[in-house]
Amino acid sequence: MQIALSDEQRLVVATAKRVASEHLEPRAAHYDETATHPVESWKALWENGLLGMAVPRAYGGLGLEMLSYVMVVEALAQGCTNTAMTVHMHSVVQRYIDALATPEVKAWLYPEVVEEGRMFGSWGSEPGRRGGSGVVQTVLSRDGDGFVINGQKHFCTMAGGAYRYMVHCSMEGMEGPGSVTMAMVPRDAKGLKIMGEWNTLGMRGTVSPSVSFDGCRVQAKAVMGRPGLSERVGVGQGFGLGYAAVYLGAAERALEFFVEHSKTSRYAPDPEMLSHSLVVQRGVAEMTLALEGARGVLYDSASRWEEDADPIRRAILAARSKYLATQAALMVTSKALQLAGGRVAHRRYPLERIYRDVRTCTLMPPNAERSLEIVGRSELGLTDDLLVLRHSS
Amino acid sequence: MQIALSDEQRLVVATAKRVASEHLEPRAAHYDETATHPVESWKALWENGLLGMAVPRAYGGLGLEMLSYVMVVEALAQGCTNTAMTVHMHSVVQRYIDALATPEVKAWLYPEVVEEGRMFGSWGSEPGRRGGSGVVQTVLSRDGDGFVINGQKHFCTMAGGAYRYMVHCSMEGMEGPGSVTMAMVPRDAKGLKIMGEWNTLGMRGTVSPSVSFDGCRVQAKAVMGRPGLSERVGVGQGFGLGYAAVYLGAAERALEFFVEHSKTSRYAPDPEMLSHSLVVQRGVAEMTLALEGARGVLYDSASRWEEDADPIRRAILAARSKYLATQAALMVTSKALQLAGGRVAHRRYPLERIYRDVRTCTLMPPNAERSLEIVGRSELGLTDDLLVLRHSS
Amino acid sequence: MQIALSDEQRLVVATAKRVASEHLEPRAAHYDETATHPVESWKALWENGLLGMAVPRAYGGLGLEMLSYVMVVEALAQGCTNTAMTVHMHSVVQRYIDALATPEVKAWLYPEVVEEGRMFGSWGSEPGRRGGSGVVQTVLSRDGDGFVINGQKHFCTMAGGAYRYMVHCSMEGMEGPGSVTMAMVPRDAKGLKIMGEWNTLGMRGTVSPSVSFDGCRVQAKAVMGRPGLSERVGVGQGFGLGYAAVYLGAAERALEFFVEHSKTSRYAPDPEMLSHSLVVQRGVAEMTLALEGARGVLYDSASRWEEDADPIRRAILAARSKYLATQAALMVTSKALQLAGGRVAHRRYPLERIYRDVRTCTLMPPNAERSLEIVGRSELGLTDDLLVLRHSS
Amino acid sequence: MQIALSDEQRLVVATAKRVASEHLEPRAAHYDETATHPVESWKALWENGLLGMAVPRAYGGLGLEMLSYVMVVEALAQGCTNTAMTVHMHSVVQRYIDALATPEVKAWLYPEVVEEGRMFGSWGSEPGRRGGSGVVQTVLSRDGDGFVINGQKHFCTMAGGAYRYMVHCSMEGMEGPGSVTMAMVPRDAKGLKIMGEWNTLGMRGTVSPSVSFDGCRVQAKAVMGRPGLSERVGVGQGFGLGYAAVYLGAAERALEFFVEHSKTSRYAPDPEMLSHSLVVQRGVAEMTLALEGARGVLYDSASRWEEDADPIRRAILAARSKYLATQAALMVTSKALQLAGGRVAHRRYPLERIYRDVRTCTLMPPNAERSLEIVGRSELGLTDDLLVLRHSS
Repeated sequence: MQIALSDEQRLVVATAKRVASEHLEPRAAHYDETATHPVESWKALWENGLLGMAVPRAYGGLGLEMLSYVMVVEALAQGCTNTAMTVHMHSVVQRYIDALATPEVKAWLYPEVVEEGRMFGSWGSEPGRRGGSGVVQTVLSRDGDGFVINGQKHFCTMAGGAYRYMVHCSMEGMEGPGSVTMAMVPRDAKGLKIMGEWNTLGMRGTVSPSVSFDGCRVQAKAVMGRPGLSERVGVGQGFGLGYAAVYLGAAERALEFFVEHSKTSRYAPDPEMLSHSLVVQRGVAEMTLALEGARGVLYDSASRWEEDADPIRRAILAARSKYLATQAALMVTSKALQLAGGRVAHRRYPLERIYRDVRTCTLMPPNAERSLEIVGRSELGLTDDLLVLRHSS
Repeated sequence: MQIALSDEQRLVVATAKRVASEHLEPRAAHYDETATHPVESWKALWENGLLGMAVPRAYGGLGLEMLSYVMVVEALAQGCTNTAMTVHMHSVVQRYIDALATPEVKAWLYPEVVEEGRMFGSWGSEPGRRGGSGVVQTVLSRDGDGFVINGQKHFCTMAGGAYRYMVHCSMEGMEGPGSVTMAMVPRDAKGLKIMGEWNTLGMRGTVSPSVSFDGCRVQAKAVMGRPGLSERVGVGQGFGLGYAAVYLGAAERALEFFVEHSKTSRYAPDPEMLSHSLVVQRGVAEMTLALEGARGVLYDSASRWEEDADPIRRAILAARSKYLATQAALMVTSKALQLAGGRVAHRRYPLERIYRDVRTCTLMPPNAERSLEIVGRSELGLTDDLLVLRHSS
Repeated sequence: MQIALSDEQRLVVATAKRVASEHLEPRAAHYDETATHPVESWKALWENGLLGMAVPRAYGGLGLEMLSYVMVVEALAQGCTNTAMTVHMHSVVQRYIDALATPEVKAWLYPEVVEEGRMFGSWGSEPGRRGGSGVVQTVLSRDGDGFVINGQKHFCTMAGGAYRYMVHCSMEGMEGPGSVTMAMVPRDAKGLKIMGEWNTLGMRGTVSPSVSFDGCRVQAKAVMGRPGLSERVGVGQGFGLGYAAVYLGAAERALEFFVEHSKTSRYAPDPEMLSHSLVVQRGVAEMTLALEGARGVLYDSASRWEEDADPIRRAILAARSKYLATQAALMVTSKALQLAGGRVAHRRYPLERIYRDVRTCTLMPPNAERSLEIVGRSELGLTDDLLVLRHSS
Repeated sequence: MQIALSDEQRLVVATAKRVASEHLEPRAAHYDETATHPVESWKALWENGLLGMAVPRAYGGLGLEMLSYVMVVEALAQGCTNTAMTVHMHSVVQRYIDALATPEVKAWLYPEVVEEGRMFGSWGSEPGRRGGSGVVQTVLSRDGDGFVINGQKHFCTMAGGAYRYMVHCSMEGMEGPGSVTMAMVPRDAKGLKIMGEWNTLGMRGTVSPSVSFDGCRVQAKAVMGRPGLSERVGVGQGFGLGYAAVYLGAAERALEFFVEHSKTSRYAPDPEMLSHSLVVQRGVAEMTLALEGARGVLYDSASRWEEDADPIRRAILAARSKYLATQAALMVTSKALQLAGGRVAHRRYPLERIYRDVRTCTLMPPNAERSLEIVGRSELGLTDDLLVLRHSS
């Protein structure tokens, strides 16, 4: 997929590719095996200026628009799915800060990222609630000159690893999407307690345990924007768009591995390398073309992101990208394993890790089913129904 | 899929859309039913300047580059698959003339198209030979100051309908791709005989019977270029690229019909229009996204066409576009029929006609299997093997 | 799929195979082309004792149980999809008569089939109503010592061709499934009027125009069973089971044609028959195995049919068979065409006709979507929801 | 799928189901996590008479014919994929002993299984050789009154865990399939050395490291049958048939888990359990029907196994079963995870383990590609080509 990029855009994508292969890939198996935060890889991102890629230039970041942003995330995922996924979540938080916070709050938070290399997480999911439903039960209540948080969150990515977490709360006394309010909670906040472990099929370095809030106090300035504003700024839809970039990057790495394997492996009594097998050739073509189709739609969606911040419009752009990327990535990783055969399912090869990562991360909301509904209703002119499907985290 | 086009490009695509809906669609069912050449639709194309869209500007044509060209073909196919397919074949002949013929020959042939509205066909297939194999048995022999043709051709599109046919011959005394020579034969040539009928599942207006050549004489100037040159100019690969545009245009029309049908049809005891069915919504999304993915790759391939005329490189660009378009178009037309139900399989609706057309035209070489091989070998670095797969018609 | 059959069962299946190849196949293209009732083929069925295959033995029929019945229908469909489909519908009517009618009525109607070779049709669909919804608007009202019918029917298979039609009516003054009453109407009844034409993609010999009833009078004895009884006897579910047999038989013929074609066709410059191509071999395997899987489930469902006549249980048996048969038949006919290539899409070969027939007849209710819902709800223990999904025609 | 079984067959299948749920399932996660031999589960099988299920009755075993055998393996796999897979391999060795060994050798080996509860492994794969190629490089040479083995084996299942291993050797001085000779090697043989570790995506309890033989001495009686005989007895084809049973059992357990999960899980704001979702219902139906289709073909193949021991015929029966079971099991486990969502990808649920197991074990030879070739060539009458595809391990 050929896209006209500026020299500056080209440079940041090239940097991401270099960092992915030099710094991220060598540590990817370790984070998977130990199910630990990819701390050293985050550090490499910071040292290469990528931790602030979604921070506005005025505050020392790269201020990347969405097209080069997804290309960077895709490149990083080629090295380490977990690092790409976590820095993407972190970057969506930077965009929320830009859309919701006052200049004073920006001047307080952004330097932590740009100058100190801190990671920020975003916690929206809750036990017993469908992901992406846009409504939360964790309550934010006024308490003197600040607020307190009470409730429970699931899938708290980077809990214990990031420096701050943007917690999706419901303002006390209010209901529905109009009550949603974002509060920035520091890692060492009293009343915040990590519960349960993180031991999953894949995305094991995207450590996401459950967390409880029991009278957890936050400062007034840590609460960003009026209740409900966060649902109207068109930022949360970016989660799905970036997920699509992660899926594609991971699958591209799996295909690259398979192509290299096919060009260099020969099994007697066959006289030639695997690459000479018609079945391998057809498989490589199917994998390549599925990725090309999905990548084209992702880049197209990303290049139209800034035209208009309407949440429903952005939810559709995200859904179309995410659905195609999901299907392509699942197909590619499964077919690569099938064609490479049993020898390659061993843990010393990256393929089985990427396979687990892709099957796990494509479950994130909006899932494939929800993405189809969003696109289908949009095409059928049922835009009112879309309001209830919009995705905020 | 958003593509930056110039005003001029935008205008020609808009013209094609208008001609398709005003002139082509109303006659599409008739040409299908009667299996006759879409003569009146060709006339409409000429009157709107589209018959010369691949003729160089210096000779009065539009000289369209490949990106806007495929957009025009796609738009025309939304109105009538047969008209779009035949004018695409005609246009590839115009590009062959540009690549192979002398200025004198161009000054002889192009006015027939631009000023007189003549159609030109291209006949490469032969009985008992695999399509796209690049080798032919129809022999071109010197005969006094001209040449004679002897042999037999299959799938002679527009036989009896077009004014001239570019016949793929093998120069007497030579062999293999290096012997291939193009000869322009007029409709009323002696020794040219149409054999057999054209009665097919779909593409019934793309009348393509068999033809025999028995000592058919052609003038010296009607033989264009040295033997083998036609195989090296990178023109024939454009057949496949344009086919992809035809498939997408046809499938887009099928989807448009289905969406409209779903928004306006209700079956008791269901209280709402079909569009409110979750199954319909998901189906529309799957169809939409398959087309978007394929279209992105087609536009990308087309926009890279002029960079380099290497036949293998262009065969790859065509193969990737054609494979994805084939899969998408087959899926869309089958699913649209399935979800619309039995009422819509009636011949008074366009859906069953488009369904037949798509299943038929996606069989044209390089077929899906061959397209996969081309892409797979290219990705696996087996470029030598690609030489034997390159597609010339 | 190996099934233990009695000698008698084996014999009737062998007879069906012979009749299909000797009598049905030679006329199949003609009925398709002319969209006419397969009258001569019905006659051949009668002469070979198959018109009464679902008529009880006590009345001179074969009284086939469901397993050998579906094998016969499958065998007939290998010869002519239209003949198999129409005789299947006719046979369901025979089973309705057995379940609903008094001995006197049986003694009146069955000899028409067994001795005179008459066909009976079944008309349930109505304009603007979802197929298989189990509720009809055509009204049956008392009128002196008989009844009159008023209303409109769609998809009236064998209208003008069969001798009698079993019309699904709603008894005046009643509502819902409990009101459904079957009335036998003769072909020449006054007030019965065929409206519109039958010009469809496939199943063109299963002539099924619309029909209006305007004060159409029927005798009292022609109304079979109390209102609502027909919905409780577990007969209508047999429609779907037999459809599955039709789909499989048609697809088996398509595959047989393709295998034969592959073994006898060679295209230069390839040195060997198509059958030596790996792509053809894999395709044949995929087609064969899809049919074997579907056939196993069909035979299993059929062999369990007589255990219990509960309509919901039978709806599930039909739905599982029909869904798998639909998917297999669509895949096989599409893949056979794709692999055989353009030469075989010509109307002189049976493949394109079977392709059209399969795409058309798999649209019949319960369609693929509805079949999935029935099976899914059953597996999830939601049997109450199934009541509204049960299929009566 | 309804199959007529004798009371005795019914009983052994019921026993297997009980053992699977009482003894195998509770330990399945442990063997997966620790990648250790399922020793306690083997013991439970022995205590319940299942270790000798393929040992002839004359030697104290159950002597199961193939149909009830695959039902038992399927039932065991519902409890623990690794236990089912290893006992299946062990059982194929018992059938090899029956086909190849003298009565004296049987009287020596069978009691180890029946009376002492010993497991036997089968080692055929070699580094750098395609699985199932039927040719090996590990050499068996005469050495005094016995033999020595030299060479290297891959995928040595139960190495260190089973008591004896049937090693596929090539008799010194001979070549090709005619040289293949089976030698029984005890666990503690000198010159046998386990190399490398077993750390794979799934099937982690089917511990299968590499093993080297360096002048490993075996007694004369441990070499079973003349060279080449093992390739002609039609036993090795049973590997693939049993694999199909393992895949289906594992996928059935995954589906059972998903159905239970759907009936008992509710996510706000949705008012009802997941089972009420149309998407879940359709998914359950698709999963159920894929398994039913594959199971029907497996049972059919198994019930025809004993008719004829021709290796090619049995390779076809195995290939058709294995291909359908592979496709069904991959689809079911992937779809169950997708529809259940991220919460269920956690390691405390069995679904992610079964997902890994299925993706891994479906890679075993003959793989999906090879299975398709076998079936396709058979259907196309290319039986000569099948000789080189036959599968011995």
